[in-house]
Amino acid sequence: MRNLKLTLAYDGTKYVGWQIQSNGQAIQEVLERCLSRLTGEEVKLLVAGRTDSGVHALGQVCSFRTNSRIPCHGFRDALQNILPDDILVREVEEVPLDFHATFSAKCKHYRYVILNSKYPNPFAQRYAYHYHVALDSDVMHAAAQELLGTHDFRCFETRWPNKATSVRTILHAAVTRQTGWPIFTYPQPTFSQPYASPRARSAPAEPIGGEFLWIDLVANGFLYNMVRTIVGTLIRVGRGYWEPSDIRRIIKQQDRTLAGETVPPQGLYLVKATYD
Amino acid sequence: MRNLKLTLAYDGTKYVGWQIQSNGQAIQEVLERCLSRLTGEEVKLLVAGRTDSGVHALGQVCSFRTNSRIPCHGFRDALQNILPDDILVREVEEVPLDFHATFSAKCKHYRYVILNSKYPNPFAQRYAYHYHVALDSDVMHAAAQELLGTHDFRCFETRWPNKATSVRTILHAAVTRQTGWPIFTYPQPTFSQPYASPRARSAPAEPIGGEFLWIDLVANGFLYNMVRTIVGTLIRVGRGYWEPSDIRRIIKQQDRTLAGETVPPQGLYLVKATYD
Repeated sequence: MRNLKLTLAYDGTKYVGWQIQSNGQAIQEVLERCLSRLTGEEVKLLVAGRTDSGVHALGQVCSFRTNSRIPCHGFRDALQNILPDDILVREVEEVPLDFHATFSAKCKHYRYVILNSKYPNPFAQRYAYHYHVALDSDVMHAAAQELLGTHDFRCFETRWPNKATSVRTILHAAVTRQTGWPIFTYPQPTFSQPYASPRARSAPAEPIGGEFLWIDLVANGFLYNMVRTIVGTLIRVGRGYWEPSDIRRIIKQQDRTLAGETVPPQGLYLVKATYD
Repeated sequence: MRNLKLTLAYDGTKYVGWQIQSNGQAIQEVLERCLSRLTGEEVKLLVAGRTDSGVHALGQVCSFRTNSRIPCHGFRDALQNILPDDILVREVEEVPLDFHATFSAKCKHYRYVILNSKYPNPFAQRYAYHYHVALDSDVMHAAAQELLGTHDFRCFETRWPNKATSVRTILHAAVTRQTGWPIFTYPQPTFSQPYASPRARSAPAEPIGGEFLWIDLVANGFLYNMVRTIVGTLIRVGRGYWEPSDIRRIIKQQDRTLAGETVPPQGLYLVKATYD
């Protein structure tokens, strides 16, 4: 018996999320079906983070036990070969039998991407949340620092109580500004033969792309909708409605109705799950 | 009466293409409906390039006549406001009455994006053609230079004869390699508190992203499927099946069956249309 750990990236747009549900196709379902085909066994996956519908992953981790003797590298290629192109197997590793993708995870890193520009970016629609009013990322970053440490975060949990405890530890929180959606805003190549009119235009067309805000959070665990509710709360700070110090007050009051709204799923990425 | 010129970017994934068809929604249709709402007039759009289903645009140009007196800047914002987010209005300009988006175009610039990596990129699926065998971009670039100049390009036309003439002039042709799909391959941020295990992993997981090949072509006009057939032909050169010098031979023989296959639409972008 072997225990295999898979590191995955996926575009969550087409899926109902990680977990199997009646209303559409789940990522877990697609993977388990492909793994069963490869191993000839019934496969049940354990997972680091059960991402919601429309949420993406850059470094999701799952694990399963198998009697298959296919070496890791060949296993990876064979699995990729039968998976749809919106799920990428980044790595297959053999891990000790006591490794559990959910419970062995020390912490998880989520990133939320906001397209913060007046105009939309047609190519970022499925990959960022378009917020068209200017946000102050410095004050949002200051507010995010108020999240650090161990707190009862039930104020950011959509369906409380659904866990034994809503105490979590946030290890890292950062709000940074990234410019452009580079492949689409790349400078024009220089031309071997001139093709542009010498009569220069008065003003160039508005560029495609714009400013992206990344909200990165690392914690030992996350409550249901916690990242998306924190982002909605930070947006209120970034708009100037709330102060960074309000974050600590909201956490203390433990009341979901005092926090911001839950932002949409397409801006959210599970970046990494970390194990010992 | 005014003549207005629109510069557009769009994600063509959801559309049947520019031109109105019975089997789904066309970009022209969506725009004309929104323009009619704004102007109260029936609007008929002229266009630089009728992109096919799944083909994208970074700088499509169209024009229409109107009696509306809305200033260009306000017109742009009002139009964007009622358009779906996968169509971006980059610019609205008033142009002379004799400006014709189709016939006044001096040249058009198309780009074809190939994801040339062994593994897929889940986020590039709608925006590039995944070709998993290594292509030699230098030899493809050399082959592309054989296209330059004025030739009868019927060998690259899917439905010949559908034009009065299949003679066109290619002004620029380049094959370049671009690394990464930057927003998803960005280095991890540095952490204010350590969260990674000190026990370093033997090998990092395969990065998401990979190598992109851009095939840029500028011509005074393009035949139906011409870019996609040229790309299919250049791929055969990049695989080593054909030599760069075969390009000139294929053009001379004027036989579509001697050229390469037509590559899929999602890698194609109308980058720019140039006017005097």
